[in-house]
Amino acid sequence: MELDFIRGLLRPAETKIVFLVMDGLGGLPVAAGGPTELEKARTPNLDGLAAEGICGLHEPIAAGITPGSGPSHLALFGYDPVKYQVGRGVLAALGTDFDLQPGDVAARGNFCTVDSEGRVTDRRAGRISTEQNRKLCAMLDKIELPGVEVFVRTVKEHRFLLVLRGQGLCGELADTDPQQVGRKPLAVKALSKAAEHTASLVSRFIEEAGKVLADSHPANMVLVRGFSQKPDWPTMSEAFGLKAAAIAAYPMYRGLGKLIGMDVLPTGTELEEEFETLKANWDKYDFFYLHVKPIDSAGEDGDFDRKVEWIEKVDALVPDLVRLKPDVLVVTGDHSTPSALKSHSWHPVPVLLWSADCRRDPVTSFGERACMAGGLGANIAAVNLMPLALANAGRLEKFGA
Amino acid sequence: MELDFIRGLLRPAETKIVFLVMDGLGGLPVAAGGPTELEKARTPNLDGLAAEGICGLHEPIAAGITPGSGPSHLALFGYDPVKYQVGRGVLAALGTDFDLQPGDVAARGNFCTVDSEGRVTDRRAGRISTEQNRKLCAMLDKIELPGVEVFVRTVKEHRFLLVLRGQGLCGELADTDPQQVGRKPLAVKALSKAAEHTASLVSRFIEEAGKVLADSHPANMVLVRGFSQKPDWPTMSEAFGLKAAAIAAYPMYRGLGKLIGMDVLPTGTELEEEFETLKANWDKYDFFYLHVKPIDSAGEDGDFDRKVEWIEKVDALVPDLVRLKPDVLVVTGDHSTPSALKSHSWHPVPVLLWSADCRRDPVTSFGERACMAGGLGANIAAVNLMPLALANAGRLEKFGA
Repeated sequence: MELDFIRGLLRPAETKIVFLVMDGLGGLPVAAGGPTELEKARTPNLDGLAAEGICGLHEPIAAGITPGSGPSHLALFGYDPVKYQVGRGVLAALGTDFDLQPGDVAARGNFCTVDSEGRVTDRRAGRISTEQNRKLCAMLDKIELPGVEVFVRTVKEHRFLLVLRGQGLCGELADTDPQQVGRKPLAVKALSKAAEHTASLVSRFIEEAGKVLADSHPANMVLVRGFSQKPDWPTMSEAFGLKAAAIAAYPMYRGLGKLIGMDVLPTGTELEEEFETLKANWDKYDFFYLHVKPIDSAGEDGDFDRKVEWIEKVDALVPDLVRLKPDVLVVTGDHSTPSALKSHSWHPVPVLLWSADCRRDPVTSFGERACMAGGLGANIAAVNLMPLALANAGRLEKFGA
Repeated sequence: MELDFIRGLLRPAETKIVFLVMDGLGGLPVAAGGPTELEKARTPNLDGLAAEGICGLHEPIAAGITPGSGPSHLALFGYDPVKYQVGRGVLAALGTDFDLQPGDVAARGNFCTVDSEGRVTDRRAGRISTEQNRKLCAMLDKIELPGVEVFVRTVKEHRFLLVLRGQGLCGELADTDPQQVGRKPLAVKALSKAAEHTASLVSRFIEEAGKVLADSHPANMVLVRGFSQKPDWPTMSEAFGLKAAAIAAYPMYRGLGKLIGMDVLPTGTELEEEFETLKANWDKYDFFYLHVKPIDSAGEDGDFDRKVEWIEKVDALVPDLVRLKPDVLVVTGDHSTPSALKSHSWHPVPVLLWSADCRRDPVTSFGERACMAGGLGANIAAVNLMPLALANAGRLEKFGA
């Protein structure tokens, strides 16, 4: 449903909704016919919620589509991920906790290697260390451009964030990455009249960067791409009438929350600290997004057992959540990250929704195969979960008379 | 998903996908509570694939919609069947193995009976025999028009194909069938300025046809409808990066494959020959569409037992397919043709998808009721099967970062 449709049905309520997002939750067996990570994990508390709730598997984007973290989270938050697309530059800003302002132009940069003719010989500069990256970013951050502020921040290895801040900037610029070695970086090109001034500024930045990095082989040049500006989207408050808080140990997820107007709550890097933060702020918000990263990381590393362990750790903290008596509790992942594939995947993601009025289904354990038989169906679009949560929280009026 | 969305995510791979399409596969019980044709059939090989794969029921077009063979196949091939519609004239050309060229204008013709005043007394000319049709088409095929070639081909009984070939033709013409007896055929009418020249040519053809057929009562006139031209759609190669082959004993299905750029492989009329053709061409393609017609024909004839037998014949050949080690094997029908209804129907169609990474569901037999509990869901849109197959074949990149 369009956000405007939902917005037209909102009604105020004193209810509280919690989305517990276990990043990369969905999995696969390592041996044919065996259990997935979630099926293997001992999860008495989640199983109890599944038994009292309604379960299913959600499809973050569409059948067969493997999502990145940006689109998959936006879908969970009720924003159509194909309509609400975030540029790579903006995502890089979110991922580094950079406080991107309206009007800023952000881009993802790569340090690269060029030969004496200026032709790219390595698009990733030998994947220099993050440590080395920090030194080089500190140098680039000193570059001055007329009338605008320049920010250069380390992302990781060869990747950095470039932000220009000032009046009249526009992010409609083409990438400079030639996408193959043996070619010179592409000239900065404005894709619209409005972006011509910004193009000349970026062009000058790159020229200066080349001088600053001249002696920093292999990282002696930069490529920039994914120019974009902070989108002007409805906030969670505007779209769903929710005072929303984000609790996440990783910058990317705090950034995604901030992008749609969530308050980002200071928290620690430990799971227990995230749950403590939620408890401490319970009275202040209607909606809590609590993000758990290590499950995905274990999947990316291909570590089945570690993924199982982290799922069990989350399960052990679930009673703390339940004791707060949320009106609606949704437990799911943003996408699947099967340790068998060591990457995000297209497989639908287990989801349980618990509320007093949810209409229980026969599912009594929280796992991929069990959820296939759940009342939410085996491939509900992720974007539908938020309206369902609102309904279960008594926050939606009847449509039509 | 739009084809352009999928196209933006394609990545090359060496994997192979097979779609085994059992035409009209879905069925109904003859006695309430009894088995469907597929449930009755002994299918140990398909059951084995179901047990190792993921199952469901697909909806070719949308809930409640009974599809023709054109739209239902296009949906299976990943083309939105409401957006990608084939004109009746083009379908007639496909169904007669006519080698339709870009720019040709095709129409479906009916022989009809007119009285001395030229009023239609039988819109189907008493359903003359196909044999008689051939004689009349040979006569009409000799009609000459200025500047264009004229082709007239037998379809079946009273139905024929008319094609004009030449420069500057346009298919935007209204039907001439008055849709009821007692009226004269409608004059040929151009629906656009661009079609006026074509309208005058078709008008002349009909005039000549009336003269040629004057003594051929009851087939003494023609009605033409469904004027259309070969659509300029993305090929399977452009849309999905697949080198695709079609193996089908019936012209219509070869034509549908050809329409979206599949290579049509010469094959025999026997089931075994189709499977042999696939085997012989295994190294040459990424994607194989293998079409099995007699299951649908048995359904259309209301012959439950013959439908069961043909399903069992296909099952017996499945091991030949499996031995080739496709990376992704999809077994399904294009639509349901319950023998109880003697026609196509709107009922969702059993589908199984087998791949190493498909995430098995608990379904262990291939049948309508078993598939309702499958991981693909009880009514997945047919158009989603191709992206799913691509994902399982490792042919799609992640969407977003």
